[in-house]
Amino acid sequence: MTIRMYDLAGADPAVRFSPYCWRIRMALAHKGLDVETIPWRFSDKSAISFSGQGAVPVIRDGDNVLHDSWAIADYLDTHYADRPALMDGPQGRALANFARHFAQTAFSAIAFKAVILDIYNVIDEGDRPYFRQSREARVGKTMEDFAIGEDEARAQLRIALSPLRALLQEQDFVNGHAPAFADYCLFGGFMWVRGVSPKKILAEDDPVYAWRERMLDLFNGLARKAPGVGA
Amino acid sequence: MTIRMYDLAGADPAVRFSPYCWRIRMALAHKGLDVETIPWRFSDKSAISFSGQGAVPVIRDGDNVLHDSWAIADYLDTHYADRPALMDGPQGRALANFARHFAQTAFSAIAFKAVILDIYNVIDEGDRPYFRQSREARVGKTMEDFAIGEDEARAQLRIALSPLRALLQEQDFVNGHAPAFADYCLFGGFMWVRGVSPKKILAEDDPVYAWRERMLDLFNGLARKAPGVGA
Repeated sequence: MTIRMYDLAGADPAVRFSPYCWRIRMALAHKGLDVETIPWRFSDKSAISFSGQGAVPVIRDGDNVLHDSWAIADYLDTHYADRPALMDGPQGRALANFARHFAQTAFSAIAFKAVILDIYNVIDEGDRPYFRQSREARVGKTMEDFAIGEDEARAQLRIALSPLRALLQEQDFVNGHAPAFADYCLFGGFMWVRGVSPKKILAEDDPVYAWRERMLDLFNGLARKAPGVGA
Repeated sequence: MTIRMYDLAGADPAVRFSPYCWRIRMALAHKGLDVETIPWRFSDKSAISFSGQGAVPVIRDGDNVLHDSWAIADYLDTHYADRPALMDGPQGRALANFARHFAQTAFSAIAFKAVILDIYNVIDEGDRPYFRQSREARVGKTMEDFAIGEDEARAQLRIALSPLRALLQEQDFVNGHAPAFADYCLFGGFMWVRGVSPKKILAEDDPVYAWRERMLDLFNGLARKAPGVGA
């Protein structure tokens, strides 16, 4: 049975840019599970109210309804235990947890400044008031004052991504010789940027760039084929 | 048979402050292996020349001689496979590798500025010219210009340790519910600071502080009992 997933979309419904939804898109492909994605927008709270909350990803798998990318990954490993593991044992789970927090703090703190105005341009007009108001409340200044440019973003990320860079000089994937959920947690952040922004946030000689290329190629180019502003 | 380990010492031979040696002290305790440590100083290159290089930790285990904390951890897991694993499977190894690079980049970039002058004060007089010359060449300025104070270090680490803090809000150890080599890799950095510096680099309400306390208590307070300037 095909899993259905509510997936954050831009004004163009083909543009999907939620870092959390991308984690699950990649995780479902890793598990070899079919998915039908349903474009969703920030203001469509009622469309996912059956999940008991208001954020995506939300998946429906038969009678099971789940939300939160971390909980969904746990569900997929438990419910489809005969398929390739996303998190292999307690230490594999700890690795994915470290990677997702690295994505949500060290990476996102900088990337969000780089893409906040780009996101505003990509989202549906109906989503813009909500986006501006909620994000300006969160960061405590106007989006325009909060934003940084491409060169500044690349310079700041060069430092912030040092641990990831050092790791990827020694192994092809965050998870080791093959990708798994730690990789998808980090890659989701890069797909968020790619979906909305033309900014080049990585230098081409950066090992993180080469890793992102490998990630874009996975599953017959699932992520590379996705429409988006960046490349 | 007791393993012998060459361990970086200060002017006071009881003060041991190498982050890499602390990784292995903790790893040996994790494995339940006895160790005899031999105090070693930066200028004692000849004492460890039998290892084919000039840095500690160096261990001698019967006829086996090893150096480099990462290679030693691999050796311990392979050679003592019947004892508790330091790195559990490929994802456990990847976690430890991410943690050690996080320690060596995000953490050390700041901590080294905080402790460079403290290290100079703790090391043997005979080591000081070597230390000043090699470190000033590495950082491209005088130690005094490179150094930062306690408040600045704590503020910078507050940001740099965000991924670790978020992780430790959800789980007791970097490795999950129990400590293993990823924890020891990070903890080594904190023992480096503790050995040489009175600076308080963590706020007491920081989850990283609580984790460090748990680490200090492991193995009957092995690390807490170690003589050092900090606490």
